[in-house]
Amino acid sequence: MTHEHIIAQLTKPGDFRVAATDGKARQGYLMTAHGLVRTPVFMPVGTVGSVKSIDPRDLHEMEAQIILGNTYHLYLRPGDDVVARRGGLHAFNGWDGPILTDSGGFQVFSLSGLRKITDEGVEFRSHIDGSKHFFTPEKAISIQQNLGSDIMMCFDECAAYGATREYTEKALKLTTDWAKRCREFHEPGKNGQILFGITQGGFFQDLRERSIEELTALPFEGFSLGGLSVGEPKDKMLEILRASAPLLPADKPRYLMGVGTPLDILDGIEAGIDMFDCVLPSRNARNGTLFTSMGKVNIKRAEFKEDDSPLDPNCDCYTCRTFSKAYLRHLYTAKELLSYRLNTIHNLAYFLRLTKDARQAIREGRFASFKAGVEAVYGPNV
Amino acid sequence: MTHEHIIAQLTKPGDFRVAATDGKARQGYLMTAHGLVRTPVFMPVGTVGSVKSIDPRDLHEMEAQIILGNTYHLYLRPGDDVVARRGGLHAFNGWDGPILTDSGGFQVFSLSGLRKITDEGVEFRSHIDGSKHFFTPEKAISIQQNLGSDIMMCFDECAAYGATREYTEKALKLTTDWAKRCREFHEPGKNGQILFGITQGGFFQDLRERSIEELTALPFEGFSLGGLSVGEPKDKMLEILRASAPLLPADKPRYLMGVGTPLDILDGIEAGIDMFDCVLPSRNARNGTLFTSMGKVNIKRAEFKEDDSPLDPNCDCYTCRTFSKAYLRHLYTAKELLSYRLNTIHNLAYFLRLTKDARQAIREGRFASFKAGVEAVYGPNV
Ligand SMILES: [Zn+2]
Ligand SMILES: [Zn+2]
Repeated sequence: MTHEHIIAQLTKPGDFRVAATDGKARQGYLMTAHGLVRTPVFMPVGTVGSVKSIDPRDLHEMEAQIILGNTYHLYLRPGDDVVARRGGLHAFNGWDGPILTDSGGFQVFSLSGLRKITDEGVEFRSHIDGSKHFFTPEKAISIQQNLGSDIMMCFDECAAYGATREYTEKALKLTTDWAKRCREFHEPGKNGQILFGITQGGFFQDLRERSIEELTALPFEGFSLGGLSVGEPKDKMLEILRASAPLLPADKPRYLMGVGTPLDILDGIEAGIDMFDCVLPSRNARNGTLFTSMGKVNIKRAEFKEDDSPLDPNCDCYTCRTFSKAYLRHLYTAKELLSYRLNTIHNLAYFLRLTKDARQAIREGRFASFKAGVEAVYGPNV
Repeated sequence: MTHEHIIAQLTKPGDFRVAATDGKARQGYLMTAHGLVRTPVFMPVGTVGSVKSIDPRDLHEMEAQIILGNTYHLYLRPGDDVVARRGGLHAFNGWDGPILTDSGGFQVFSLSGLRKITDEGVEFRSHIDGSKHFFTPEKAISIQQNLGSDIMMCFDECAAYGATREYTEKALKLTTDWAKRCREFHEPGKNGQILFGITQGGFFQDLRERSIEELTALPFEGFSLGGLSVGEPKDKMLEILRASAPLLPADKPRYLMGVGTPLDILDGIEAGIDMFDCVLPSRNARNGTLFTSMGKVNIKRAEFKEDDSPLDPNCDCYTCRTFSKAYLRHLYTAKELLSYRLNTIHNLAYFLRLTKDARQAIREGRFASFKAGVEAVYGPNV
């Protein structure tokens, strides 16, 4: 069956098909209320609705398919009720493609000292004004319904790296209970919004398996691995990733949350992951660290002062088509606002092309050599 | 003679024709090495080479004709020699339209306490690292030759507002002497770069007239009024502007430096000025103050929190075509980088359209009523 035929079968949000595999790596298609997503996919992060320094035209030009919005941030400012009255996040921020929202869980649990967890939910204080708030699973879904995202995430507890087995087990249980409440609160398919379950289990593989077993017993449209890339050594992350990703249902999209570097993403794809998000390309862009086909480039370096070559000759982004390394270095050194924008355009284009190239490599059965080519530039993922 | 015929006669940089007048207001055409400039014209300021947060595509979309670069800033960083080796400012910053560079005089004289003036030139310390530098008229031109701007400005001394008659007279004399040295140093027409003289004279009309007489005796391709908008009351500025602008040669472009608000620009056009530059639209954009066809809008205001209307229904800029006031307010409140960009796009589009509309009004002999329409919105210019 051709890819076109497979895509034609995806008629409603949440419909997903794997169209090609290469080892455990998969190339698939996920339908959402705002259109098709080709996987593996990288999702640029638009914390408060905008991908920092980037506008919707830029996103289309760099072939972004889907962006991520942060429930915690949008709830606090401008408020999910305000967004709902605007017609949802798409109408508000001008991005007409798919949007995934996280559940706020990760942000709320990162506010250590500012939050209190009960079975019912989490009380926390705003990082903006210290005001007190209470998130329950139902509240997290209600906010995401107000935001009108295409893909919503369950409210979960993400145990910190270094958490004891006992604590991790407790967090896992809470995550399963809350996932049930999320699923009950959001009727499948309602308003075209689909809901993904988040699996936890920290760095205990048997707990990972238990979480996956409990979560995948529930009728979610996709599943994620949560609680990775939270400060653990790389080999720990890879160990859990490689052992757990293949346990997620093969017929549903698999999402590795908050990961990661180009090599992390390729390791994820190799393990059978379909979706990724990370602030790394945009945050690093603002720090002058740029990802290229020749490896990482620190644009601050004096050696680029008179370098008239493009940042990456193999990149067709606006930045690389238009400007030299010398000019990018100058803008960075002078702290010009345009520096953040041009660097971000390039870094996001790099991550988006990386996953686009991965899709093609999978279709052509040469993912391993594609991955080896990137590793040859970026070194082994350690 | 049609405008097309007039334009066809402009064959070399510096060629200028007034094609229509309406009272003292003029609509003309100035040829530069990088193309034609329709006057009256507003020039966005690109201090260190980039108009803050804006890229060359944006500039073309908003119909910017010519931008301004700051000699002082570019000399310090990245260095005019570095820019020269890149092929000049156009090759460096990706803007292929005309560029005007100031002489650095205004910036250097603004470093009060950090500079020492002699007949030979000015010693000053860098605002970046405190390093010592010496600008002469020849040096200021040499830097601008390195930058490769289409229009260079003479090195002048701009007396501060409140300067005594004696000081102002001395500064005037120095400005004339330096203008002669600039003209001698830069052979007319060399490398397609044209040179404008700056007239001074502070707030003494007879000194203004003396400066104009002395400067216009020299063969410059254009003349400016310098030393206005330096902290004086509005009526002082208008008084000098109205009395002095008509004394500048009618057959050369007239440039009012560093001015101003929309009403200042219309007052300048009414007095016979052809060219303007100001950081006001871009700086105010970053502070959330936006210029619209209904007057000034402070996008921070709570009243816009749920306002789904565009910032300016009469504006066709990307910002107004795409986003609501509610979203612009949200971006501003969250201090998102995209806020600076979208606000700047709009404000520059407003200033550029204001001068475009003025050109049309002059051609159609209705400049007075056009100006009255803007005054009805922005109030009298006091
Ligand atoms: Zn690029
Ligand atoms: Zn606008």
